[in-house]
Amino acid sequence: MSKHDHAGGTGGHDAKLSRASVGRYSLYLRHLERLQAEGVSTVSSGQLGDALAITDAQVRKDLAYLGSLGQPGIGYAIAELHGALRHRLGVDRAWNAVLVGAGNLARALLRYRGFEKQGFRFVALFDADPSKIGTTIDGVRVSSTAQMREVIAAEKAELGVIAAPASAAQELADALAAAGIRGILNFAPTLIRIPPGVSLVTVDLAVQLEQLAFLVHGSDDAGP
Amino acid sequence: MSKHDHAGGTGGHDAKLSRASVGRYSLYLRHLERLQAEGVSTVSSGQLGDALAITDAQVRKDLAYLGSLGQPGIGYAIAELHGALRHRLGVDRAWNAVLVGAGNLARALLRYRGFEKQGFRFVALFDADPSKIGTTIDGVRVSSTAQMREVIAAEKAELGVIAAPASAAQELADALAAAGIRGILNFAPTLIRIPPGVSLVTVDLAVQLEQLAFLVHGSDDAGP
Repeated sequence: MSKHDHAGGTGGHDAKLSRASVGRYSLYLRHLERLQAEGVSTVSSGQLGDALAITDAQVRKDLAYLGSLGQPGIGYAIAELHGALRHRLGVDRAWNAVLVGAGNLARALLRYRGFEKQGFRFVALFDADPSKIGTTIDGVRVSSTAQMREVIAAEKAELGVIAAPASAAQELADALAAAGIRGILNFAPTLIRIPPGVSLVTVDLAVQLEQLAFLVHGSDDAGP
Repeated sequence: MSKHDHAGGTGGHDAKLSRASVGRYSLYLRHLERLQAEGVSTVSSGQLGDALAITDAQVRKDLAYLGSLGQPGIGYAIAELHGALRHRLGVDRAWNAVLVGAGNLARALLRYRGFEKQGFRFVALFDADPSKIGTTIDGVRVSSTAQMREVIAAEKAELGVIAAPASAAQELADALAAAGIRGILNFAPTLIRIPPGVSLVTVDLAVQLEQLAFLVHGSDDAGP
């Protein structure tokens, strides 16, 4: 689970979407992709809700926001709903991203094949270690953190991923924001502050293991 | 965002908790830790709900499940609520975990300092590559995947983390389950099936970037 922070939300009809619904829309998208992989072509709001533990009323309200898509008695055409969700939410386009911290996590993220499929492309790597600067990792060049502004402008990058130690995370977030990055994905296990106008998602890997522990623990209690 | 799957939930009072509430409890825990870090000592259900985009009624219902903790007009003592949540959910104990796939992601996870703080300890690494077997990474020994059963039993590991390519994930999940692992955290970008009695959490790293894209896109629409 991750923390969603959206500094600079100053109203407008999407302010509410930005904060509250983003997690649910992501769940809908992922579940629709799962159903497509299984060869299913329609789904009802009740089925979506059951699968994701969201009330039927909430699902219908969320999806109504996309336009008139469902048909009574038939449900939603999955391909159409999936396309409408991606379009409305801005993920039917390509996003250029930079990685900060050229360590093991960055290497793993560069090789993670899920990103390109969803339209995310890593266009630059930054590190403070002089021995890494000028090298390339999986075809992506490592630049000095001192050159963030020029490289980010040249590569037209909008998103930045912090894969650096917690002690450096705040300074790197400040540098990314100053260089014009509009959204930061933070893997460092620490809280960071961002200026207005920049969005933040924090990935807390420990929480994922914690949720697994909950499930295993819960299955003890529910046992025979 | 991750997919939560719980095969083998055969009723009992926690069956509902296992599927639906696990995400919210995790959010509560994380937010309480954030408030503690900021020096806050009490919180109301309304404040928790506002911060996490969950209705006040749902927060009160969730927390009532932990016992009589809140006080009218004062709210919840954060330290007490935090302790009760951890105890009730089974994360106030240590969990031994094994990592499968001794690559960059495994190295990054071994060095990720957030895990130990939450009570998770990596006790073994598995890989199929003979050149890695017998080596140690950050003090953890790499064993052959053929020895999973003995090593997992000897180390009393209950959780398994798959940090291997998608093509190998299903086979490794089957091997972990056969070796007695009770919960699997899957980082491979693919759907895997697990037998009854084993829990599964899938970490889809692309979804995290997608959520960031939503936020950045949303802030365009909400602009001046």
